[in-house]
Amino acid sequence: MSDPFVVVGGDAAGLSAASKFRREAPDRDVVVLEKGRWISYAYCGMPYFVAGRVERLSDLLSLSPGGVDDRGIDLRRGHEVVGVDPETKRVRVRTPDGTHREQPYTELLVATGGRAVTGEFDLRGVDGAFTLHDMDAAAAMDAYIADPTEYDPERADVSAVDRERVDHNASLPAPETAAIVGGGYVGVEMAEALRARGLDVHLFQRSARLLPPFGGAVGERIEAELADNGVTVHTETPVESLVADDRIEAVAFDGERHPVDLAVVGVGIRPNAALLDGTGIELGTGDAIRTDGHGRTNLPDVYAAGDCATAIHTVTGEEAWVPLGLTANRAGRAIGATVAGDPTPVGEIAGTAAVKAFDMECGRVGLLDADAAAEAGFDPVSETITAGSRSGYYPGAAETDVTLVADRNFGRVIGGSIVGPDRAAIRIDTLATALEADMTVAELERLDLAYAPPFSPVWDPILVAAKVLNGTLSS
Amino acid sequence: MSDPFVVVGGDAAGLSAASKFRREAPDRDVVVLEKGRWISYAYCGMPYFVAGRVERLSDLLSLSPGGVDDRGIDLRRGHEVVGVDPETKRVRVRTPDGTHREQPYTELLVATGGRAVTGEFDLRGVDGAFTLHDMDAAAAMDAYIADPTEYDPERADVSAVDRERVDHNASLPAPETAAIVGGGYVGVEMAEALRARGLDVHLFQRSARLLPPFGGAVGERIEAELADNGVTVHTETPVESLVADDRIEAVAFDGERHPVDLAVVGVGIRPNAALLDGTGIELGTGDAIRTDGHGRTNLPDVYAAGDCATAIHTVTGEEAWVPLGLTANRAGRAIGATVAGDPTPVGEIAGTAAVKAFDMECGRVGLLDADAAAEAGFDPVSETITAGSRSGYYPGAAETDVTLVADRNFGRVIGGSIVGPDRAAIRIDTLATALEADMTVAELERLDLAYAPPFSPVWDPILVAAKVLNGTLSS
Repeated sequence: MSDPFVVVGGDAAGLSAASKFRREAPDRDVVVLEKGRWISYAYCGMPYFVAGRVERLSDLLSLSPGGVDDRGIDLRRGHEVVGVDPETKRVRVRTPDGTHREQPYTELLVATGGRAVTGEFDLRGVDGAFTLHDMDAAAAMDAYIADPTEYDPERADVSAVDRERVDHNASLPAPETAAIVGGGYVGVEMAEALRARGLDVHLFQRSARLLPPFGGAVGERIEAELADNGVTVHTETPVESLVADDRIEAVAFDGERHPVDLAVVGVGIRPNAALLDGTGIELGTGDAIRTDGHGRTNLPDVYAAGDCATAIHTVTGEEAWVPLGLTANRAGRAIGATVAGDPTPVGEIAGTAAVKAFDMECGRVGLLDADAAAEAGFDPVSETITAGSRSGYYPGAAETDVTLVADRNFGRVIGGSIVGPDRAAIRIDTLATALEADMTVAELERLDLAYAPPFSPVWDPILVAAKVLNGTLSS
Repeated sequence: MSDPFVVVGGDAAGLSAASKFRREAPDRDVVVLEKGRWISYAYCGMPYFVAGRVERLSDLLSLSPGGVDDRGIDLRRGHEVVGVDPETKRVRVRTPDGTHREQPYTELLVATGGRAVTGEFDLRGVDGAFTLHDMDAAAAMDAYIADPTEYDPERADVSAVDRERVDHNASLPAPETAAIVGGGYVGVEMAEALRARGLDVHLFQRSARLLPPFGGAVGERIEAELADNGVTVHTETPVESLVADDRIEAVAFDGERHPVDLAVVGVGIRPNAALLDGTGIELGTGDAIRTDGHGRTNLPDVYAAGDCATAIHTVTGEEAWVPLGLTANRAGRAIGATVAGDPTPVGEIAGTAAVKAFDMECGRVGLLDADAAAEAGFDPVSETITAGSRSGYYPGAAETDVTLVADRNFGRVIGGSIVGPDRAAIRIDTLATALEADMTVAELERLDLAYAPPFSPVWDPILVAAKVLNGTLSS
């Protein structure tokens, strides 16, 4: 082997890079070092697996190790990179047998992802307490929820799975009540998932609103939708502790104890960058690895991409850390091309995201928080409107709330959100495109969006929001 | 009355203009002259009324005459403008009692809309033969379709309706078979509507594909969807004549006669501009009234908007005539502001449109036809891809076809279409926004669109299309 492109991490960013590189530079070697047994799995699909909407764990895999092999990629699972020497351009690898070896690289991509944090809660050794950041956790939670007499081991139909952990969880009595700690994506999606499995669900959110990055209008309607579907939502309610013996017994808050058989902690993730400790690596926002527009770090020939890396925000032009799936895939692919000799920007991010709770869909993009916008140098003005999703006479027309944020000085659109039960989420892409194009509110108002009674009224909710915000800006 | 803003036509463009003007210039008079009895109705909703999805004709009215009065607009129905004298700034009006009078204007807006044409077919005096371009036709067709013993006169619950025509149609035997002449919007929507009413439906299209402005990929899938739902589609089949005595009896084509009890002719519309004959008015594309970026015609203080007027196409920068609802509303509103003293661009059009046939949705924008693109000075390159609408493991993921057209020289996106059964139509707004922003395919490929398993795979179908077309452009 000579002149290798070495990738650390076998998930979205890493395998996108390796695959693109393989196609573009067929004469060079590409090695992917993955510390675990899992590769290329759909993190975002795990709540739907737990909910039972996805039948088998294997459905969440986009690529098998064999498929990666077939692409001509040298994938080494169970290989953990524990150190990087940028001087000699080598990584130190712990191999499955516990020995260490050195792997030289010509270029290195760090695509080590993130890890779920648990805040002040220690879930180790506690049955029934989970985070949801890897496939083993999803398989274990699914087994735990099932009635021991009814669990179908075929649900966890992947050889990589921690079978012992699954079997143990499957053997435990089925839970009837659940607490979810944290009202972000994971919390909201898990509330729906656990209701789908028939549990009594309490959701605890430290701050006043669910899904804080989506803004108030979204938070309110998602909360109402959860409540309508039997989820008890506690806002402004920090959970003080998880009460457990071997098994979770209760959550403690406000001096109360609420007994539960299952707890899910979804309070955030952090970038995995420890392997670069001592190399002189520059970290940025959120302690993620600082990268430039081509995914380069400050170390020569070392790139980073995905949940462990920063990106450039299209609205501020500044560094941001927003760990999301498309960002990882896109940056990985671009870096694969760049390393192969075709310099390709990784693309800017707009923080575009969508999520649903039962039948309520929402999306967000850009800067919604007034303080964050002010900090980035904007003078934010915001309006929230409610408009129909279809012509009023067409069955299924539903109230859709749009929040639009602009900079007062130039009228530029800097953020927005949308929420409603009828095709609301996908509409956020229109705003994402407008943000990327630096459009003003006046330009947004004049967009020629599609009008057809089953899909949109003459004035699409986004156009209504632009009209109202434009009025505010010019008054 | 002094210094009046006179509007000819009481539908989308005219009443949008009058309403906006009323708010912005409260001290001036605004007069709306409407030749008929109907105002402000949802043309696009009529097929859904005929289908029975909309319960009452009145549901299709956005504004009542009383509501217009309440806005302080001097609305005069039954007043037909038969001539314009730009020298003396007067219009000649035929009043309901048949007399003529002169109405002076300070500014004039011509918002006379379009009219359905019937090509070589003469439908006059033939029972069971319809176009679908006004509310009386919709009410009559609905009554005609109903069984005489079951027709509910409350369906046509608007005093303006031609009750005699409705009653006559209601008295005729219910049809069992229908022919639709023309495979554009009206044809496709009416095919669904008439199937919903239980008729045996044959659709005749002169050219090879349905919905020609949507391109081949859309036409194919819409045709398949119609066929799947029991519509017999005849492409490349010009109807030679409608065979009728008092009542429609058959359509003749290819030397055949296909007997039918109902015929709908939807072969296009033409702008209503005759009232300006002899004024020196300049007509443009499609014989529509030529207007500039503020809706001005070549006559001083005479504006035009809506289906009777041209607009500027955002891709070509040239004149175009694309009669659609949002264009009319938006231009009317802008002209109302301009005349009130706040010069406001009417906005460019992108030809954005969406339509559905049963469960298949589609949208289109910009230049899709290679010849039209070449004529506009582009060197068009096009790719059509098929991608999933959701993550593959998520229930409901459906094949979505995206066609993307770009100019080879600069890589600029100049057109696109999308078709699929899962939230496909509304996605066209993303492309409309990209077109308005003059984005290149490479910029489109790097858009940060929302990824969430229930709504979009990591690579949204639009991103997949951009990726593939970008590959073609750079090879």
